[in-house]
Amino acid sequence: MTCEFISGGVTAAAGFLAGTACAAIKKKDKRDIAVVYSTVPAAAAGVFTLNLVKAAPVLVSMKRVAGGRAQAVVVNSGNANACNGEQGMRDALAMAAEAAGVLGIPEEYVLVASTGVIGQKMPMDRVLPGIREAAGRVSAGGGHLAAQAIMTTDTYPKEAAVRLELGGKTVTVGGMAKGSGMIHPNMATLLCFFTTDAAISPACLGQALKYAVDRSFNMITVDGDTSTNDMAVILANGLAGNEPIEGGGPDYEAFRDALGEVCTRLAVAVARDGEGATRLIQVEVLNAATEEDARLAARAVAGSSLVKAAVFGRDANWGRVICAAGYSGASFDPEKVDIFLGDVQVARDGGSLDFSEERALEVLGGDTVRIVLDFKTGSCHATAWGCDLSYDYVKINAAYRT
Amino acid sequence: MTCEFISGGVTAAAGFLAGTACAAIKKKDKRDIAVVYSTVPAAAAGVFTLNLVKAAPVLVSMKRVAGGRAQAVVVNSGNANACNGEQGMRDALAMAAEAAGVLGIPEEYVLVASTGVIGQKMPMDRVLPGIREAAGRVSAGGGHLAAQAIMTTDTYPKEAAVRLELGGKTVTVGGMAKGSGMIHPNMATLLCFFTTDAAISPACLGQALKYAVDRSFNMITVDGDTSTNDMAVILANGLAGNEPIEGGGPDYEAFRDALGEVCTRLAVAVARDGEGATRLIQVEVLNAATEEDARLAARAVAGSSLVKAAVFGRDANWGRVICAAGYSGASFDPEKVDIFLGDVQVARDGGSLDFSEERALEVLGGDTVRIVLDFKTGSCHATAWGCDLSYDYVKINAAYRT
Repeated sequence: MTCEFISGGVTAAAGFLAGTACAAIKKKDKRDIAVVYSTVPAAAAGVFTLNLVKAAPVLVSMKRVAGGRAQAVVVNSGNANACNGEQGMRDALAMAAEAAGVLGIPEEYVLVASTGVIGQKMPMDRVLPGIREAAGRVSAGGGHLAAQAIMTTDTYPKEAAVRLELGGKTVTVGGMAKGSGMIHPNMATLLCFFTTDAAISPACLGQALKYAVDRSFNMITVDGDTSTNDMAVILANGLAGNEPIEGGGPDYEAFRDALGEVCTRLAVAVARDGEGATRLIQVEVLNAATEEDARLAARAVAGSSLVKAAVFGRDANWGRVICAAGYSGASFDPEKVDIFLGDVQVARDGGSLDFSEERALEVLGGDTVRIVLDFKTGSCHATAWGCDLSYDYVKINAAYRT
Repeated sequence: MTCEFISGGVTAAAGFLAGTACAAIKKKDKRDIAVVYSTVPAAAAGVFTLNLVKAAPVLVSMKRVAGGRAQAVVVNSGNANACNGEQGMRDALAMAAEAAGVLGIPEEYVLVASTGVIGQKMPMDRVLPGIREAAGRVSAGGGHLAAQAIMTTDTYPKEAAVRLELGGKTVTVGGMAKGSGMIHPNMATLLCFFTTDAAISPACLGQALKYAVDRSFNMITVDGDTSTNDMAVILANGLAGNEPIEGGGPDYEAFRDALGEVCTRLAVAVARDGEGATRLIQVEVLNAATEEDARLAARAVAGSSLVKAAVFGRDANWGRVICAAGYSGASFDPEKVDIFLGDVQVARDGGSLDFSEERALEVLGGDTVRIVLDFKTGSCHATAWGCDLSYDYVKINAAYRT
């Protein structure tokens, strides 16, 4: 890694400001509006939910990102503005217009994102004043509060930033994310916002974002299993003054990998903060024939309810691990697979093995539980992240009434 | 429906006997061995797990069913005999051979099935005497105890039988199943055994079984998400004396639909008895453009953890329902979808609607919760079944230690 982590999030890079407000969408006195703003127009790229049912703000942002330029993002939590028909679309556009008016920039340069309950009208009488307030107080120190304002069931804000050198210039990449609550973002909404002062073309920016998200956020989910509102967008304003990145090469790769570091840190934070989670599960598949095989198997193991429940119960049940790999669609030889829990080998050549139950119990009691599958076939690796399945997951999602 | 339900299960049809024994595989004094036997050789067909990791008994039974004839099935619960390498294969063959010896039939006519823990050697010193005992006491009244012997975390045995007329002859189709514990059979093992005295060719039998299972057991799961041990097999011994069914036509269709009735009743029983379940969820998708669209959407809604948790908590959260349909891969127009909980309409044209919360709460408190999505596009329907997600699911699967 040629970049280093620094403190901060979406306002770490030069020329990025953020402001927040409480619009009482979620609860009274909770921040629920964030505006992120670049002092100059920026290259923009995004990846969006594959759900057939797309919330209005997703449709607006997809269209605007396709133009390749943007200058601000307005986000609210507490209401998804999904399944609200034409009114929902009018409200999403009005949110962007409100921010644009205060910031003095073209409406088309404002992206919109929402997260919260589906099928409830946006309380625009409170949202618009909230946006005015947030946009009116953007500042270089506002990133941390912005990361708080986008939270729903998250228990802590998630932000990260890195610094790297590109041709003698210092470039910063920062970001913030709100958790999906669970490791499958189909379960709730995943929103990620990245900012950088790198000079880079929209096409290269989009390619780097896709590469980084595929190896981070898409490894805490199953492709296509996304909510109505998921999105990850990035703005690059060029203020670092580096030689613009217009194609492949060392500068592109360094930037892409730095963005990857920010993505991975945020994705792991989302997984660890899964609803009801008591432990992070990190699944590594080693020596698969193809990267796709490794990724399929790693994601299936991390997503298996039975594996998740076993980790919650500190049960060294490797049979559930190999079973999940077996139905993942990955190609491998079951009679070659070695399985480890942390440093304890629990299966060899797809079969049982004597191991220290005591040591396994210790590994399973850790803050992070590493599950490693060695396919012993090729040279491709992948890592996926998830969390255990606890009583509290049910409690949080059942809003139990009887 | 041209058939009628009668009492009984795998020994309801003429010429089928069953016997059981306690071999202390699960627990002392719990039945865990069942042998089902036809007094004459029978046509055989089966469908088997798509998991890459297949238990030894699955491999043995797949090979034997391919021959089109069988006369007995030996089943044990408590140990899956999966991931046991060559020893596992030797043990599975020895189990079949033991039953064949006692019953005086060819080894190749005996199918084998196992369910339980993965990766533990079969305790053959107890299993073989158990098989001897069970095979030695097969009787026409043994079906009910057989349905008990194959249970693992099931809370009640599952059996069903129907009778129909084919060309003036009375034909009986019976069956038993053990639940997967959860609505996704990837979560545990689903075993189903059917018997019939119909005269039918192995090819027609296989076709009828696949048709019936696709519309029942495969609607409480996601295709491909199956355990290492799942199987459904059927034996047809011809003792009813009907004109043999050798191809399509009214007799074939009547038989297939009768088998379908048995399958559906057992599948619904499995879903209702899901681990920790407090309610059955029945999801009906109406007026989809294709049957595949209807099936994809119904299964995704029934399988969504958030929908399941909402039903447990009696939360009329239709947003989670449309979101699951949206990521299912089904094609539909989100702005046309109507959603009902029982007889209460909760969404119209993909948007919110005023409804009686009180009445919805009542529907959600029922033993069976019906969720209906009307796509208003075509004329294809599908139904899927599942259960709610409760604290007890986590408890059962976590074997919580701390």
